[in-house]
Amino acid sequence: MVDSVRQVVINSPLDMHLHFREGAMAQTVIPLSSYSFAGGVIMPNLVPAVNNFERLTGYLAEIKSIVGEDLFEPYMTLFFKQYSYQELEQFKPHILGIKLYPAGVTTNSENGVAAINKTEATMKYMEELGIPLLVHGETHGFVLDRERLFLPIFEYLADKFPRLKIIMEHITTAEAVALLDKHDNLYSTFTLHHLIITLDDLAGGLLRPHLFCKPIAKRPEDRAALLNAAVQAHPKLMFGSDSAPHPIDKKEACGCAAGIFTAPIALQALVDLFEQHNALDNLQAFVSDNAQKIYGVTPPQKSITLESTPYKVPEMYGEVVPMFAGRKLPWSITKVNNLI
Amino acid sequence: MVDSVRQVVINSPLDMHLHFREGAMAQTVIPLSSYSFAGGVIMPNLVPAVNNFERLTGYLAEIKSIVGEDLFEPYMTLFFKQYSYQELEQFKPHILGIKLYPAGVTTNSENGVAAINKTEATMKYMEELGIPLLVHGETHGFVLDRERLFLPIFEYLADKFPRLKIIMEHITTAEAVALLDKHDNLYSTFTLHHLIITLDDLAGGLLRPHLFCKPIAKRPEDRAALLNAAVQAHPKLMFGSDSAPHPIDKKEACGCAAGIFTAPIALQALVDLFEQHNALDNLQAFVSDNAQKIYGVTPPQKSITLESTPYKVPEMYGEVVPMFAGRKLPWSITKVNNLI
Repeated sequence: MVDSVRQVVINSPLDMHLHFREGAMAQTVIPLSSYSFAGGVIMPNLVPAVNNFERLTGYLAEIKSIVGEDLFEPYMTLFFKQYSYQELEQFKPHILGIKLYPAGVTTNSENGVAAINKTEATMKYMEELGIPLLVHGETHGFVLDRERLFLPIFEYLADKFPRLKIIMEHITTAEAVALLDKHDNLYSTFTLHHLIITLDDLAGGLLRPHLFCKPIAKRPEDRAALLNAAVQAHPKLMFGSDSAPHPIDKKEACGCAAGIFTAPIALQALVDLFEQHNALDNLQAFVSDNAQKIYGVTPPQKSITLESTPYKVPEMYGEVVPMFAGRKLPWSITKVNNLI
Repeated sequence: MVDSVRQVVINSPLDMHLHFREGAMAQTVIPLSSYSFAGGVIMPNLVPAVNNFERLTGYLAEIKSIVGEDLFEPYMTLFFKQYSYQELEQFKPHILGIKLYPAGVTTNSENGVAAINKTEATMKYMEELGIPLLVHGETHGFVLDRERLFLPIFEYLADKFPRLKIIMEHITTAEAVALLDKHDNLYSTFTLHHLIITLDDLAGGLLRPHLFCKPIAKRPEDRAALLNAAVQAHPKLMFGSDSAPHPIDKKEACGCAAGIFTAPIALQALVDLFEQHNALDNLQAFVSDNAQKIYGVTPPQKSITLESTPYKVPEMYGEVVPMFAGRKLPWSITKVNNLI
């Protein structure tokens, strides 16, 4: 008896946390997302940061020129700073949300927020205008405690601004997952890699720089809590890859940059993961429908067909080593249909 | 007013956990230890392992030929396997102890012990013959839990063989330190690096492959417990650098080998550390006297003088990047006196 090839169709998958970079790197990575996703939330932590109209429109134009004919909606974000009500009113039609980085916690976040109480006027305006707040929720504490230590700040903000949608980006701990059910206005993105790896994969055998990311991968119990929420497609949860390309010479180095590049293999790996957990029926919600409801967006209509035939992940995309480089994934993308 | 240069003299410093390798690497690293130390415990995890008379005498001859005129005693160890009483009787005059590696937990430990209950006949003979047992105490659990999960095995062995001296090598957790006061026959080595770094230094900013080691560096509370015991020169505690050279292309790589190379900078850094904690009076015990009492050895008489003048650590020794590469340490070795 021959195993029949199985098919999975995903409608308008969305990557709600994505790093596109600029220039040559953008040329490499944008087409890989715009091919297989219908849209993505584009992070603003460039140098200089995307925090004014000129940077925003310039970056959007660069992205659109690379996206070209692909059906892909770049949902733009601004780098959090103190904005006036009038500025935010002008920005609102052009952005999905504003991304807050505590100063210095990740790549190009040196000019982020140093004291949360200086942010509250802007947050009040965002609440009034209905602009979501996206947060990299880590403190400057010990690397394994940073997310946990930030959770009281999430709770404080959720209580203080009850109509502000707050997205806890790329959470990694069981304690953070638990907050989704405690505060109506807290939402979250999960990455692919935090559903798969723990600190063991980074540092349990040989040290694996290509699995180094921020927040750092945590304990097996944390991964289990994330996976449990993901495969149930918890309605306050969205897929956001945090796909973060760095050239190989910044990864295999004396000081290795944080970030895992997953965009081109995310759908294939998610189908595999959800199938392993008998949860393929929930994948559509996790990779698209939940995000549409939470943000109130309607992405381009596009269907991605995957089949249960092996896909060998390239060793490199340009200068970037992807997750699962050189390994075979059991699912391939076999068709991309643009429905409009 | 000009600060006067201060001096510290250490008599016959001993490095009770040391990786010398073989061949070209041994040529690079052995002279760096034999210059500033009076002796060291030489680990047997080579390929093939040092677990028979031929390997033991051959390796000792190689070491002695490189040590040359330096006053340095290589205290040899055997790789643990099941040995007969007669074999151990023959080995005893030639070794300081036998090193047990649970299978696969660190570099070249693939042929280590897979089941502790198969080891007990040999341990009984070692107890009778007065041969110490040196143990890399980690299980195969989650990377942060491996040492903690091994502690019940230390306690079991300590109770089962009350006259066997058991050395918990390079321990890294507060819980392991606490066992020193609980079992008369448990002793320990501490590395330099576990007194200085935590997981934050490896992975809190950029990932630092040259600070990757096994056991992996732990939490600030763990480092504090180690430092507290070290600066008091707890009498059941010895310095053992676990200095483990790897060529740079095995460290700055897709899969980075575990090990930190500290031998040539260990004394300078220890003087600095003990001075910072107002504990210079206890350094002699930590780096020599405790080990002499625990093992009952009398090393060559050699005094090392350090002065409070800056020492710039080389970027490389041969192909090996040392800890603190390119940085200045506040103490230099200025004189090595051979007293015999």
